[in-house]
Parts: sequence; C-alpha cells; structure tokens
Amino acid sequence: MSLPFPVLTAEEAAAMVHDRQTIGFGGFTAAGACKVIPLAIAARAKAEHAAGRPFKLGVITGASTGKSLDGALAAAEAIDWRTPYQSDPTLRKSINEGKTRFFDLHLSAVQPTVRSGVLGKVHWAIVEASDVKADGTVTLSTSVGAANTFIRLADRVLIELNAHHPAALTGFHDLYEPADPPHRREIPLYAPTDRIGSPVVKIDPKKIAGVVKTNNPDETGAFDQPDEVTNRIGENVAAFLASELKIGRLPSSFLPLQSGVGNIANAVIGALGSNKGIPPFMMYTEVIQDSVIDLIKSGKCTFASGCSLTVSPQKLTDIYRDLEFFRPRMVLRPQEISNAPELVRRLGLITVNTAIEVDLFGNVNSTHVMGKDLMNGIGGSGDFTRNAHVSIYTCPSVAKGGKISTIVPLVTHLDHSEHSVQIVVTEYGVADLRGKAPADRARLMIEKCAHPDYRTLLSAYLDISSKGHVPQTLQNAFSMHLAFLQQGDMRQAKWVA
Amino acid sequence: MSLPFPVLTAEEAAAMVHDRQTIGFGGFTAAGACKVIPLAIAARAKAEHAAGRPFKLGVITGASTGKSLDGALAAAEAIDWRTPYQSDPTLRKSINEGKTRFFDLHLSAVQPTVRSGVLGKVHWAIVEASDVKADGTVTLSTSVGAANTFIRLADRVLIELNAHHPAALTGFHDLYEPADPPHRREIPLYAPTDRIGSPVVKIDPKKIAGVVKTNNPDETGAFDQPDEVTNRIGENVAAFLASELKIGRLPSSFLPLQSGVGNIANAVIGALGSNKGIPPFMMYTEVIQDSVIDLIKSGKCTFASGCSLTVSPQKLTDIYRDLEFFRPRMVLRPQEISNAPELVRRLGLITVNTAIEVDLFGNVNSTHVMGKDLMNGIGGSGDFTRNAHVSIYTCPSVAKGGKISTIVPLVTHLDHSEHSVQIVVTEYGVADLRGKAPADRARLMIEKCAHPDYRTLLSAYLDISSKGHVPQTLQNAFSMHLAFLQQGDMRQAKWVA
Repeated sequence: MSLPFPVLTAEEAAAMVHDRQTIGFGGFTAAGACKVIPLAIAARAKAEHAAGRPFKLGVITGASTGKSLDGALAAAEAIDWRTPYQSDPTLRKSINEGKTRFFDLHLSAVQPTVRSGVLGKVHWAIVEASDVKADGTVTLSTSVGAANTFIRLADRVLIELNAHHPAALTGFHDLYEPADPPHRREIPLYAPTDRIGSPVVKIDPKKIAGVVKTNNPDETGAFDQPDEVTNRIGENVAAFLASELKIGRLPSSFLPLQSGVGNIANAVIGALGSNKGIPPFMMYTEVIQDSVIDLIKSGKCTFASGCSLTVSPQKLTDIYRDLEFFRPRMVLRPQEISNAPELVRRLGLITVNTAIEVDLFGNVNSTHVMGKDLMNGIGGSGDFTRNAHVSIYTCPSVAKGGKISTIVPLVTHLDHSEHSVQIVVTEYGVADLRGKAPADRARLMIEKCAHPDYRTLLSAYLDISSKGHVPQTLQNAFSMHLAFLQQGDMRQAKWVA
Repeated sequence: MSLPFPVLTAEEAAAMVHDRQTIGFGGFTAAGACKVIPLAIAARAKAEHAAGRPFKLGVITGASTGKSLDGALAAAEAIDWRTPYQSDPTLRKSINEGKTRFFDLHLSAVQPTVRSGVLGKVHWAIVEASDVKADGTVTLSTSVGAANTFIRLADRVLIELNAHHPAALTGFHDLYEPADPPHRREIPLYAPTDRIGSPVVKIDPKKIAGVVKTNNPDETGAFDQPDEVTNRIGENVAAFLASELKIGRLPSSFLPLQSGVGNIANAVIGALGSNKGIPPFMMYTEVIQDSVIDLIKSGKCTFASGCSLTVSPQKLTDIYRDLEFFRPRMVLRPQEISNAPELVRRLGLITVNTAIEVDLFGNVNSTHVMGKDLMNGIGGSGDFTRNAHVSIYTCPSVAKGGKISTIVPLVTHLDHSEHSVQIVVTEYGVADLRGKAPADRARLMIEKCAHPDYRTLLSAYLDISSKGHVPQTLQNAFSMHLAFLQQGDMRQAKWVA
C-alpha cells in the first residue's frame, strides 16, 4: 500500500505536538484507543520537563483509554486538563491529588460540547484505524467514541494504522453526526439495527499530518469470574424483568437492553441469557462486552449496537476469525448516537448500571468515594438512566468485607436523583421505587436491599428523623461515612437525636 | 347548545367519584385547572369522613393547580397520593407532615409513566374546556398539561365547560401524543412554531359522564413587582447571553428560550427584552407568563410555545380582547412535548431556572428546604437543564435577610448535578462553570456569586478541606445549614478541622 501521507515513527508524530495544545483522542475504553503516539508524547513530555520546559496538554477522549494513553500521559505529568470518564489508576491518582484538572461530562454531551466551542480549539485528532486509503477514507478499529467529531474539527490528524485489526472491519461502523441548533433534525434511528450514516470517515488528505504503523492488541483486561454475590444480583435483575414481562408492563417483544461495564454487568447479561422467561433481545448499549458476544453466538442476543467492542483479547480473536457471522449482528456508533437521550427514550431502553452507593430515597452515587475522590466518572449512566423505560441500579449490599454498606442514609455525591432511579437491586433483593413517597422508599430499601448487618442501624436512622416528606437529619446524614473514615467500620455509627 | 351528555351540577359530578379511585386532572398551573368539581369532591370527602367512611384519592395532575383543586382536596384530607409538582400551601403542609404521600416526576415523564401502567388504572379524567361539541370534540382552555393522555386512558371523563374562556380558543392548542416503545417514532417538531397535532381532543361521547357548566376565572395570582435584586439578576443573565452571542458561541439568530416560573423569571425575561444586544427571539417553554405577553406585543418575542398560559387575570382579559393578534404567535402543547428532552436538545434551548440553593461545585437544589421539607417539586427544570444548549440557574445570593446563603458547601437535596448545570447567576455576577474542575468552580462561585458576607466563610471551608478532586469535608458539609437550624443564622457556622 502506498499512501500520499508521511509514514512516521511514533516519535516523529509526537514531535509535532506542542505544549498547551488540545488533543482529541479517538477510541472508547481501551478498545480502539491509540497505543504508540501517546506513549511517545509522554516520553517527549518527560524530556521537555527534564530540560526545564513546560509541556502540558488538554486531553479530550471518548471515555476511558488504555494504559499507554491515560496511564503514560498521567505518569509523565503531561495532562493539564482532561474530560470525560477515565479509569486509569495513575491518572485517577493525579486527579485526586489535584494535579490534573478533571471535569466530567455525560458521554452523549462530549461531541456537542466540543462543537459548541466552550472547550476551545482542538489542535489534534489522534485516532486508531484498521484501514486508511489514499483519498483519506479511514475505517476506525474496535470503537468510535468521538473520533468522527475530533477528526472533522481538529486542525490536523495523526493516525495509528494498526495491522492487528483487519481492514475487513469496514462495515462494522455507522458514523452519523447531527447538525447543531438551529439546524438540528431528528436522529433518524428507530431500531437498534438501523444504519443511518457512513461506515468510514472521510478526511481531507491535506489534514493528515502522518500515519504511524502499529501492530498492537487492545489493552483490554479480562474480567473476574462472576461470584456468588454478582450471580445473585444478576438473577434478581433477570427475575424482576421476567416478572414485568409476565404482568404486561413490558411489551411481549421485550425492549432493547443497555448494560454498564464490569463484573456485575457481565453477571446480569449472563443471567438474562439463561432466564427462560426472557425472550431473545437486542442490545442498544455503550460497551459490548464478552458476555454479549456469548449471547450473540447462542442467539439469545439478536443484535448489539454499541460504541465500542471491549472484549478480552481471546474473544476478539474469536470474532476476527468469524467476522462474517458477526457483521450483520453488530454495529459501532459515535457516543452521541449510542448514548443519545432522544434515542434512549424512543427505543424504550431497559438500562442496568452499577452504583457505588445508593441512599434510602433512591439517589445514586456513581462517581466519587466518600464525597471526595473520583472513581471513574459518570460515563453514560446519566444519558441512559434519565430517559430509560425502566432504569435499574445494581450493587453488592456491602463492600470492604462488610465495613461499608452501599445502602446509606444520604449519598456523598449525587449523580442520579430519586427522580430518575426506578429499581435498585442487590444480592438480597429488588426495591421497586416507582410511584412511592420517600418514607416508603426508605423502608423498602432497608427491607429489600440492605445487608442484614445494617438493617437495624438504618431503621434507627429513620426512627430518629422527625416526620416529614424526607425522613432525614442533616447532622446524622453522613455519620456512617464518618464512622468508616474515623473508626474503619460503618457499623460503628451512632445517631444523635 | 344542546349536548348529548348529562349536564350536571358539581355535586352530582362529585357523587360519581369514589374512595380509592385515581383521578387525572387536566390543566397545568392554576391556568386551565378545574375549579368546581374538585371543590365538590372535597365537600364529599369531608361528609364521608364525618360519617366515618374512608375517602381518599390518587391524584395525578399536569403540575400545580389552583386553590380549589389541590388546596381544597388537601384541606379535606382527600388525597392519598399525589404526583407531580404542586405549589399549594395546604397541600405542601400535608405532604411535609407525612399525611399525603407525594412522589415527584420530571414533568415530561408524567404521560409516559401513566401510560406504562406503573401507577395503576386512571378511573377519571376531569378537565376544563372552553368548548365541547355533541360529537365529543373538546377544546381545552388556558393549558394542556397531561389532559390528552388522561382523557384517552381514563375509564370516564368529567368536563368543566367554562364560559369565562371563549370558544374561539380553538386553534391555540396543538395536541400530539407519541406512541410508546417499541413503536415510538421521532417527535416531528423542528421549530417552536411547528404544529404537529390536533387543535382539539376527540372523546368517545359514551365516555363523557357529564359536563358541569362554569364561569370562573383562572385562580392565578399576580406576581410581585421586580425589585433591585431580581432586576440585577435579570441584567446579569441578559449581559451574559449578549456576550455569548457577540463572541460567536450562540448563532446570530439566537436560540429559543425556556424560562422557569416566578419573579426572577419575569425579571430575566424583562431584561432580555430591553437588552439591545439580544435580537428578537422565540420561547419554547413550559409556562407563558405576563412578561412574555409584553414581549410578544413589543415584537421582541416573535413566538411563544408553552404548556400553559399562566397570566394575571388582567393580562388574560387583554389577550382575549385581541385573540386574532395572539393566535399566530402562540401555541399550547402537552407537557411531554413542551418538555421533551428530544426537543430541548434538538432546538438547542437556552434554559433559565431558579434554584433554592447551589453548592460550590455547581450542584443545584430546586425542591427541598434543609433537606427535608418539600417546597414545590422538580417541575420541568430537569427536562430542560439536562438537554439545554446553555443551562442557567439563577437565585438571589441570600435569603431571610442574609441569614441564609444560597451558595453553600453542599446542597441538602440534589436535583441537578454538576454534570448538567453550566452557568450560575446571582445579583453579584455570573459563574461560568463550563469546562472547569471542581476546585476551580468553587473559587469562581465564591468570587462571582456568593454574598460578600459569606465569601470569607466559604473560602475558609475550601481551605480546611484537604486537597483532592472535590475539596469538601463530610463533617462540615452541612454546618452552615445546621447553624441556621440551631442558631438562626448561617454566618454562625464553624468549621471543624
């Protein structure tokens, strides 16, 4: 293949990037994230810092990335500011030490926010591709994220052309970018299977500063095997949905499913797959994980629309071996489409996401530990929850061997309010909060979701709270959290009347 | 006019309603709310209670209502449960004493939630009309709310035919009800002026249990005159938007405006009207208030789409005198259309809503006082804020003569998170929180928005909070609120290291 763009080393590419510039990185999760240019930029940052020169970048991504991107740049202290969702331990530490200025966005809002201009100019789009043609036609790799918008808006583009991904991935992507107000129309998508855009990105060849050839697998990790707690949570979700279907509150054809990321999400999808009361269904989600691939193979999941194909290396090899089986059963979209509030409500999604903690009134914390430290970010949970047909949050009832209850009097950071959260599920049961007043919600959360070790303590909190619309007392609202911080165990909390 | 339905007295209509039934009341705010049937139901409830018989109803409305509806039913202890937004002092007291079970819904979610079946059967739709024809064709009056859905789903319908409203109101309404998933399509509205539905509701005449003839004005109150504080807030909002327009972050044609209800909202609309830097604009909002009517007359507001025409009695008389001037300049829609997240994002609304309190990180409390007592409810604020092109919250910097700061370390009830709130405005200035990390937001909120009496106290809070992503300390987060509750003044708060 002969290309009319310079073929560069990662170091040559990195040398073009300068202090104070803003970069939009393609990709979404470690799947499809760049692997060698950010590593070279990190090395350049270290060298510049060693020479006494400043080198810090504005970094916008689709969501989390791999260790060679967020991890390496954070370790090199090369990130001035960063948005949105991240999950890298080194970057997280830098944010929580106040060294990296992080602000969070709902993932559907990243592309509109970049287009609005409030984040300033995007100097570079740096993206991974599985194929590049001489006319600037690019096929992305295992994810889309916000790549199409970064490419269009950036001054210049750098591409990692990764031979690990087959060029035959062309056709797995569906790239559609809405116009902005006042010229915006509907997003013309009516079923998860609909294709509304282009399978490739067209880039003006003059904008392509260079191509770096690579052959590296995605830096995705394997998930832990489900354990008894996650399995019970999955079974509770599946039983609840089978019951809703049986009593006619869900259409007999079921509704498309969105599921968050991680071990609980994998267990939930597994349980839906094996529950005989649930018919074959489609996914309209953000991240397509290993468990979804298994359900596609078994026929229980008939189609998966996502923003990334975030599977273990072994699973990706399986897919690449059988690309023509998966081609009609899967599509990857930009995050403003996979997470579009308009489409979540139109399609009537059943959404299942994971909480860090939930309070007695149904408010959910998805992002912060003890009100202070960022865990990962809000991701797409807000996009999906707010507009869901049925919104479900899952979490184990306790953490740290029982020293932390995830059911608390008041969440220490609130991401999803009682107005949007409908169903809460732990390994103990299902609290259906719909149509219930705060006091009734609280009793139900204790009865159905709290760990038995905490039920008496939480009930006592309600008892000392004076009567009113929301039975809570400000002086006690965080006492369980403070008991953990000061004595190492939430069970030490004492209520002050 | 001869109608094929029984013409009833209010008492005869009320006698058909029974204990434990659920009623969907048409209307939105006091405009277009029923006035005589609910009063008669309240009398019936009192009589039943006096006779030792139970009589309590499930009550679903569009939003708030008039004193003859929420007020009378609450005073008669006739409401078992109630949703959504309310603003009646008697009902509020009943809710905050735990006597009425209240649960809140985003106003765009009321109609889909009722259709989903989770609130159970709707026995009665009770609605006000300005015209009823023998074939069951009904023209609503000064609002829509959720009336079209209640009428379609309810077992039977009672109508207050109010001669105070002219039958010539036909054509002011545009009634469109989307299908539910999996059959839902786009809402085919692309500009505030678009008409996508029917000007009237068609009811199977057999479903109409009776018509009660009335001649009563809407129970809307007059607003207070703007004062120096609200005027300065309005001017700050207008200056901010004029500046955004000038630097090209808003299209030169401007974008449609949504504005909340009340005195600050009136002042904001007034200030936008007189700011020379703002071109004529359209409103796509929930409640059309007096100040909007003035701007329509002056030509500064070229069109207003709303869910209710909630104006003072004098203003309504003006409109009714000049109906043909207003006919092409105004439309009333169901709340799931006026507040549709899909349309808010498509039209790119500039949204302006009022906060009870805002915290240093940009989280907003719209609904509860001191974390416990319900004020009114979330209304449409969430529908608009989350999907806005620019979301603005306004509040005076202090309340209770300075004893309460509305800028606090942490809100005691969170309705709109830092992920959705972009701009905060008080009489002191404008905090543009977009693209800023929590620590930077906090400094900006103190500098631009807090009352000078509280700036040192709030800065000291940040100083004692250990470094981290969110500079806050759980043991101090509510100390200002507790100082007010215990000592009567937030300025008495002491921070514990």
